[in-house]
Amino acid sequence: MNETALRLLSAIALVIAYVFMIFHSGFYYLEFYLFGLLVIFFGLRELYAFCRREDSKPFFLTGFIFSALIFTVYYLQFLGIQFNVSPPQWVYETSKQLREGFHPVAFLIFAMSVTLWILQIFKRPLDGALFSVGATILGAVYIAIPLGHFLLLLAFPFGAYYIFLVSTITFISDAGAYFGGRWFGKHSAGLKISPKKTWEGYIVGNISAVLAVLLLNYLWEKFSGMKVPVTVFESILLGFFFAILSVMGDLAESAMKRDAKIKDSSALIPGHGGLLDLADALLFTVPAMYYYFQFKGMLGFPV
Amino acid sequence: MNETALRLLSAIALVIAYVFMIFHSGFYYLEFYLFGLLVIFFGLRELYAFCRREDSKPFFLTGFIFSALIFTVYYLQFLGIQFNVSPPQWVYETSKQLREGFHPVAFLIFAMSVTLWILQIFKRPLDGALFSVGATILGAVYIAIPLGHFLLLLAFPFGAYYIFLVSTITFISDAGAYFGGRWFGKHSAGLKISPKKTWEGYIVGNISAVLAVLLLNYLWEKFSGMKVPVTVFESILLGFFFAILSVMGDLAESAMKRDAKIKDSSALIPGHGGLLDLADALLFTVPAMYYYFQFKGMLGFPV
Repeated sequence: MNETALRLLSAIALVIAYVFMIFHSGFYYLEFYLFGLLVIFFGLRELYAFCRREDSKPFFLTGFIFSALIFTVYYLQFLGIQFNVSPPQWVYETSKQLREGFHPVAFLIFAMSVTLWILQIFKRPLDGALFSVGATILGAVYIAIPLGHFLLLLAFPFGAYYIFLVSTITFISDAGAYFGGRWFGKHSAGLKISPKKTWEGYIVGNISAVLAVLLLNYLWEKFSGMKVPVTVFESILLGFFFAILSVMGDLAESAMKRDAKIKDSSALIPGHGGLLDLADALLFTVPAMYYYFQFKGMLGFPV
Repeated sequence: MNETALRLLSAIALVIAYVFMIFHSGFYYLEFYLFGLLVIFFGLRELYAFCRREDSKPFFLTGFIFSALIFTVYYLQFLGIQFNVSPPQWVYETSKQLREGFHPVAFLIFAMSVTLWILQIFKRPLDGALFSVGATILGAVYIAIPLGHFLLLLAFPFGAYYIFLVSTITFISDAGAYFGGRWFGKHSAGLKISPKKTWEGYIVGNISAVLAVLLLNYLWEKFSGMKVPVTVFESILLGFFFAILSVMGDLAESAMKRDAKIKDSSALIPGHGGLLDLADALLFTVPAMYYYFQFKGMLGFPV
């Protein structure tokens, strides 16, 4: 099987799992939560492998525990505000407390920092302290916090549509850039990080993303019978800007791999490389899409 | 003037400024806010100097801007919940939104991460990306978030007392360890990071902290005429455990300096070295004290 076919097959399998998780709300979205923990586990493993140096090494176990706690906090917040399942009363109360009573993410980041420094003091050699601790915290910031925003985005009344929206833009712009680059690529985009990327690829990616959003809206309205909560003009702007942000997410992960002198983040996903190779752009676009609608809602627009 | 006298004189000047800032609520605690921004500026300068390597360098301006925004968010939250000044109505509303509507610190940390990666992609060489970005984020986590908790702690009805409580434990345990080590120090505590520290020093520091809390409570009740909101037993436990946490804060900063091969974080404060040399322990103990009372309050105890 050639690389492109493998890439497509993997993608199809993942899309099916992905769609299932978004719509299957039974068991209080438990499979989404467990899937999130797996993503954190494998994602941190890849990221922390990038951060291994002669004198320093991230604290995997501590990084994983605090990242899992951060994601759990988002999951509990989510259960109390989503519309599809009715969790027990204590979950509502915990969710409210975690949203309004105090800010659990800042607390966990602080507790993580103190824990890491104490471990560094007693368990590690003198050198490399700043990179070991800094890289461990980076894991929570780069993976766990964005992943939590998946759930926050899904909790909106139009949450499932928003997840489709951001995923469509992210994956279609990437696929568009890949095929656009292969078929029309002539002028290098001049990026030191990814020297093979071409302007043609990026332009095709961007146009594909905008068209894909319009197609998504058409199909969504046809099959759900409900109007999507964004106008055509807004859809075009979202497709355009989030395709760019998606490229930034992709390049950010390439920058990490370049720094670490590693080609693929791992070989976890056939045809795609590692988990981070696949998820890199979503880690930027999903939280950004959440804040877009969050701020839109705070300004009084329906979301 | 010898080192000890200089150290004491500096300390007295700082204590006066510190007490003024806690009690002077005029101008909506503006001098506290401005002082916080200065601490962030000089603190980040010192921390980021620790993180300079051959191939990597933190992004000072971006780190400062986002750290200042994080601190500003805490300041606005604080204004809406403190009891001493009455800010305009819009401040109350903004504060409520920033506490309950969405979680601004997680948002700012995410936005900071994306901004840093984009800067790294376009402005920096390929190497050192992970340390440059990780260290910049570490600055916000290590300095700005803890500093914000100063204000959250002050916002409690007994906030001024709590600030005195945590500052007393932190500084007296440090001073006690310093003089205890000089006068009685015999058995090395065996710390690679600070080989000169002795068990005698730490024990004297710890006992001093406990006694100082009891003295503080006595004086506070005598002069304010109000009962302090902690029992004698609780005071002893707080003195004991926060003296230990205070030592961890001190050692964490020593670990950073060791890693950076720097002796003093800077020469900003006569007799003490840099800002971080002086503030290191507070960056651990103040947020921890805030969460202690926050959780105590959530469990239904008066705070």
